[in-house]
Amino acid sequence: MRAAVLLGPRRLVVRERPTPRPGPYDVLVRLIAVGLCGSDVHFYEHGRVGDLVVDEPLVLGHEAAGEIVAVGSAVDESRIGERVAVEPQRPCRRCRYCLTGAYNLCRSMEFCSAPPVDGAFAEYLVVPADFAYPVPGTMSDAAAALLEPLSVGIAAVRKARVRPGSAVLVAGAGPIGVLTAAAARAHGASVVVASDPLAARRAVAAVHGATRVIDPLEQRLEEESVDAFVDASGAPAAIDAGLRALRAGGTAVLVGMGSPRVDLDLFLVQSRELRLEGLFRYVDTWPTAIALAESDPADLDALVTGSVGLDGLDEAMRRNGDADVVKFIVDPRR
Amino acid sequence: MRAAVLLGPRRLVVRERPTPRPGPYDVLVRLIAVGLCGSDVHFYEHGRVGDLVVDEPLVLGHEAAGEIVAVGSAVDESRIGERVAVEPQRPCRRCRYCLTGAYNLCRSMEFCSAPPVDGAFAEYLVVPADFAYPVPGTMSDAAAALLEPLSVGIAAVRKARVRPGSAVLVAGAGPIGVLTAAAARAHGASVVVASDPLAARRAVAAVHGATRVIDPLEQRLEEESVDAFVDASGAPAAIDAGLRALRAGGTAVLVGMGSPRVDLDLFLVQSRELRLEGLFRYVDTWPTAIALAESDPADLDALVTGSVGLDGLDEAMRRNGDADVVKFIVDPRR
Amino acid sequence: MRAAVLLGPRRLVVRERPTPRPGPYDVLVRLIAVGLCGSDVHFYEHGRVGDLVVDEPLVLGHEAAGEIVAVGSAVDESRIGERVAVEPQRPCRRCRYCLTGAYNLCRSMEFCSAPPVDGAFAEYLVVPADFAYPVPGTMSDAAAALLEPLSVGIAAVRKARVRPGSAVLVAGAGPIGVLTAAAARAHGASVVVASDPLAARRAVAAVHGATRVIDPLEQRLEEESVDAFVDASGAPAAIDAGLRALRAGGTAVLVGMGSPRVDLDLFLVQSRELRLEGLFRYVDTWPTAIALAESDPADLDALVTGSVGLDGLDEAMRRNGDADVVKFIVDPRR
Amino acid sequence: MRAAVLLGPRRLVVRERPTPRPGPYDVLVRLIAVGLCGSDVHFYEHGRVGDLVVDEPLVLGHEAAGEIVAVGSAVDESRIGERVAVEPQRPCRRCRYCLTGAYNLCRSMEFCSAPPVDGAFAEYLVVPADFAYPVPGTMSDAAAALLEPLSVGIAAVRKARVRPGSAVLVAGAGPIGVLTAAAARAHGASVVVASDPLAARRAVAAVHGATRVIDPLEQRLEEESVDAFVDASGAPAAIDAGLRALRAGGTAVLVGMGSPRVDLDLFLVQSRELRLEGLFRYVDTWPTAIALAESDPADLDALVTGSVGLDGLDEAMRRNGDADVVKFIVDPRR
Repeated sequence: MRAAVLLGPRRLVVRERPTPRPGPYDVLVRLIAVGLCGSDVHFYEHGRVGDLVVDEPLVLGHEAAGEIVAVGSAVDESRIGERVAVEPQRPCRRCRYCLTGAYNLCRSMEFCSAPPVDGAFAEYLVVPADFAYPVPGTMSDAAAALLEPLSVGIAAVRKARVRPGSAVLVAGAGPIGVLTAAAARAHGASVVVASDPLAARRAVAAVHGATRVIDPLEQRLEEESVDAFVDASGAPAAIDAGLRALRAGGTAVLVGMGSPRVDLDLFLVQSRELRLEGLFRYVDTWPTAIALAESDPADLDALVTGSVGLDGLDEAMRRNGDADVVKFIVDPRR
Repeated sequence: MRAAVLLGPRRLVVRERPTPRPGPYDVLVRLIAVGLCGSDVHFYEHGRVGDLVVDEPLVLGHEAAGEIVAVGSAVDESRIGERVAVEPQRPCRRCRYCLTGAYNLCRSMEFCSAPPVDGAFAEYLVVPADFAYPVPGTMSDAAAALLEPLSVGIAAVRKARVRPGSAVLVAGAGPIGVLTAAAARAHGASVVVASDPLAARRAVAAVHGATRVIDPLEQRLEEESVDAFVDASGAPAAIDAGLRALRAGGTAVLVGMGSPRVDLDLFLVQSRELRLEGLFRYVDTWPTAIALAESDPADLDALVTGSVGLDGLDEAMRRNGDADVVKFIVDPRR
Repeated sequence: MRAAVLLGPRRLVVRERPTPRPGPYDVLVRLIAVGLCGSDVHFYEHGRVGDLVVDEPLVLGHEAAGEIVAVGSAVDESRIGERVAVEPQRPCRRCRYCLTGAYNLCRSMEFCSAPPVDGAFAEYLVVPADFAYPVPGTMSDAAAALLEPLSVGIAAVRKARVRPGSAVLVAGAGPIGVLTAAAARAHGASVVVASDPLAARRAVAAVHGATRVIDPLEQRLEEESVDAFVDASGAPAAIDAGLRALRAGGTAVLVGMGSPRVDLDLFLVQSRELRLEGLFRYVDTWPTAIALAESDPADLDALVTGSVGLDGLDEAMRRNGDADVVKFIVDPRR
Repeated sequence: MRAAVLLGPRRLVVRERPTPRPGPYDVLVRLIAVGLCGSDVHFYEHGRVGDLVVDEPLVLGHEAAGEIVAVGSAVDESRIGERVAVEPQRPCRRCRYCLTGAYNLCRSMEFCSAPPVDGAFAEYLVVPADFAYPVPGTMSDAAAALLEPLSVGIAAVRKARVRPGSAVLVAGAGPIGVLTAAAARAHGASVVVASDPLAARRAVAAVHGATRVIDPLEQRLEEESVDAFVDASGAPAAIDAGLRALRAGGTAVLVGMGSPRVDLDLFLVQSRELRLEGLFRYVDTWPTAIALAESDPADLDALVTGSVGLDGLDEAMRRNGDADVVKFIVDPRR
């Protein structure tokens, strides 16, 4: 099969690779739509994200949808032909985290596109059968792929305990921030303030969940008063200001990855009894994401900037930071 | 009545003050035992703690026990003569925090000894009737006073979700750290590691809940692997190391007040999906504290270094940092 | 003031009563819209509901909205003139239930219209200031009154842990059942099945939250497979069938009052590990109810069958069981 | 291998059976101690328990401990020789229940001794490697087997939300009731009332966790006032009385299996806002059970009435209901 392989920083080539074979409980998915994520671009630019280093040639991509074309021996053959969204995790299912509903924390996790596990910028991907979710006919392929970043948003608002009537602040209006805002609305939040210094991003947020958008360079986040704050920016200044925006007893969920360290106002956290939670991917979010996307299908499609083939991925990587780009989709069939 | 009044940094005098009068739902408590807390000493030394500044003469003290000698018009007179432990809070009971079980976050809270509200280093104190808890005859007066710091420990281990079998790390083995360790054991923790650079404090922790004590100058906290970490030290290095000691999905509760800001390893918090919670006092802990203290009454008494009258408080303030001091008790009757 | 007073079963008269006077923390509300609830009718018909017996002349009514016309000494005078929805509870604020966020269980609760506490079918009502919630100008008076039954629905779906993607079954499509269905949708439920033997009620449910309606005489509830079941019928057969409709680990919330005893399939509850919860009124639901009603204001108004004055209440009581009646509103000014 | 095989009601024979072979992720355990459970006896007496019918010859037994003598291909060989306690469940690990930490509800569960899955009254048992828990050297073989009923008790008190200071009522002082009482104490309950009409059972409860025992024929359960009620009797009268003993907002956990249906006081459940939960086995309890047993190892050993070989099982089945019997242990090596 053809795959886009990262050899090192900014060295991405399309190569032939052996088509992977499904294990007994797996399915083989022919990929149709794979979203380009900021973390893919970070790997492309720097050859690493935090502790994760690309030592060997690696296939990136983890926002994936496609069609089941083969199944493992323990999987019902009737699933061949199903159009599916992919949850790109392969937990061990046997450690204490897996047994207690926190499989995202499995230490033996194999996550698509996290070195050394190949991802989805390729023609085919092997996926555990239960992590390939059938999607309704009304959902586009791109939307099915974007259930992955939507899942991050759902996981964030669950941790933030958003419920009907909540006021939520989301810092950063890239795809994760926008889909967090959308998830917050779907969980009933009455007020969803999205903050981003880029006007183009604010414009996207304004039509995807945010009830109000603000430019943090013009307006101080700390003037808000919210029940929950989700940082999808990774910017220390945003995290500091977002914490100040929380009412006493409020929750901050830290999603964005940027500066590895931030300066925390310990006195604030204590005197307002704040809760801060890190987020590491998701557990059991695809069924919810499908339900959310079904209730307003256009949302996800509207985020798509354009679609490219594997050969166009290198250019998409380079253009991803442009102000007018929200989400590129790779169609490996092209 | 006589009261120890703080006029400014290190200016503590015993003066006559008007005996306060109970409102309709209050009781008047003749104080018998009042613990000296590190925050009292901080006010004494610096005239402030964080945002709280002693602008006017102030009576400190909030770890209090005594006897009800008068009651308000709406309180049953049969309570006169009761020996009680005091929860030193007076919430408004009408804001949304109060209505939803988070009265510790009440914005109109009047907390004993937090300026400008006078505290308990005096002969008498007015207390809401429901915040004066009758104590069993087997409990000493000092122990009844120390239900307050024990309440902090209980609130901390509740937030930390300690349960039977948990492994817990407590940094700092002053009275709060020690009573947090004791509370963790009472909540069933199998492993309670207490850390303090002072040998005398480690020795106290070792007989009050800790299953193991370590000197952080000799041994690295981050080598532990625990479900929960409670910082009762306020030291940035301890907080940083304690976070590293947490297993994925673990919880840190920040109790100790020291450095106002700490440097947070955001990558660690995210990749291990840690939760950090500030603690601000307590809600509904006295009944639990009484149950805990009853099950092993000696624990609290063993923490008492000595007892002084109001006239001895100034010297106790000055000696409080000595290595051999755990907890001074003030008996305002003397 | 004028009030509709229940003297005994089916003996309702309009009489002059002394206008009540607000205590220090109260407001005096001039009532504009008061919903007629099934429990009011039950008192009217039988002179009792369960243990609650009408021994003395009683004013019924607890779904109330009006205008603040006077305030107690501790309440800001600027509130005079506010249009408010009334939470008809007066908890003691001092028992352990009140202190821990379960004030609905307060043993000293005074609940409007529960004997011997007079309710809202009168010109004026005294309400604790914090239980008189200002409503937005876009909300009608009737809708403001109907925040009370909506609050029951919100409390039910909270207990049922409804969240985005949930499948919910509601048995009984009277006002409570319909508003529970609406609340379930507002909490993100994807599937809301409402069941009622009356076609008129099913028709109402179908436009107020239910994604599907069924006639339990035609279709077996137990053929559904849902995450949560709310009984708003009080019918033993519905409860039994609803429990069978729950997936393993599901939750049933029992709201409807009818038969005092039901026959429980213990084996089912154990082998599917079901949870059953009784519901007794609500805690902290008005802010959520206002947020919900604002997002779709027409919902509540559409439930109003008609409006009467105090003199028309007797006839409204008698007509309340008619198939075409959903909700009568009493306007005591008429 | 030799196994005790149930052919039909009261027809138990010891036969040769093929020794099972571990799958890749399994271990083969040579059994040393297997407790005799009331459900085993029920199968023996009636050939069924509820919906579960013994159609084919079946090996009973699910309270098991032994030694690992062989491992599957994916299991570290160093585990051979480990002494282990067995969690007798084999969930699918792939359904939504398994993925979300509720593997006890897995619809494809294979539970040892639940027809048609053979259990542990045999020389060998195949167990998933992660469900074979190493036990400390200080724990006896019998105690390791009894971690299974202790796990039921732990699961019950978790559902009952027992915490330090709780008051708990346990109806039924057979092994499950006694170990529920012990688990309640280990979770910090201050008051644990155990009720049983049999004096011998009350005597056992009195030394294993109960702070007080009562004879329900002499004393009315409903006179208690408790936070949590665990029924381990299955008797409708006990369930009814236990519900009445609950304070408002309290929780009942239904563990005992007896009468398939009980009559529920719906008015009580609603007006006191009670919660009832069925219990179906356990999730993630062995680590906690080991921690509990280690803190007081004698507890479990003291429950052992006597030990028999496979040939003595038939007589043990017949004698199990005798007043002086608490727990028989089968040692299949004898």
